[in-house]
Amino acid sequence: MEAVNISSMLARFGEHWAPKTIAELNDYDIKIVKVQGEFVWHAHADTDELFFVIDGALTIQMRDGDVVLGPGELFVVPKGAEHCPRADAEAAVMLIEPRGVVNTGDAGGDMTAETEVLA
Amino acid sequence: MEAVNISSMLARFGEHWAPKTIAELNDYDIKIVKVQGEFVWHAHADTDELFFVIDGALTIQMRDGDVVLGPGELFVVPKGAEHCPRADAEAAVMLIEPRGVVNTGDAGGDMTAETEVLA
Repeated sequence: MEAVNISSMLARFGEHWAPKTIAELNDYDIKIVKVQGEFVWHAHADTDELFFVIDGALTIQMRDGDVVLGPGELFVVPKGAEHCPRADAEAAVMLIEPRGVVNTGDAGGDMTAETEVLA
Repeated sequence: MEAVNISSMLARFGEHWAPKTIAELNDYDIKIVKVQGEFVWHAHADTDELFFVIDGALTIQMRDGDVVLGPGELFVVPKGAEHCPRADAEAAVMLIEPRGVVNTGDAGGDMTAETEVLA
């Protein structure tokens, strides 16, 4: 039993838009992801999705406006709401959502990534 | 729709061991709490509990050893595991667990607190 250090976990990979699971909370996964550029517009029909920025800045584009997040800020995208994350420079983000949620939601496509578990 | 800034939320209260809800994720609450001193030994029979340290240092005493957390570190106390958080100096912590979980779990007592929602 030991603490999970987010910075240490972030140092273990470099690729963008490829979430890694760092802890589990009941049937939810705690994931970290590095992002840069624009993701794809998508929605998750069955679940909310929490974004918590660790480093850098993240813009979550929503159909009725942008939500801009810096370090220590979080936002929960409501179930079913279309969103498209964007980061002009590299940012590191913690994601929390039920296990098995696919990163591209209903959109699919090339940016769909398997979630690797960092042990 | 806007970001939730954890530091701004922490600035709105001072008392210790009194969690405040700052966001909701499906049927989970995202809470912040300021802690100092020792809590009570307790367990949550039905759920894991996530601790993420924002500021300061938190020791989660477990029956088989301590888990020490600094800023940017997290630990998930497993369902049913007895634990007793302790902080020698004031620390600020984010807690994530299903809505309705009582802070003192099976122990009850004077440190049991209603969770206020910071709107």
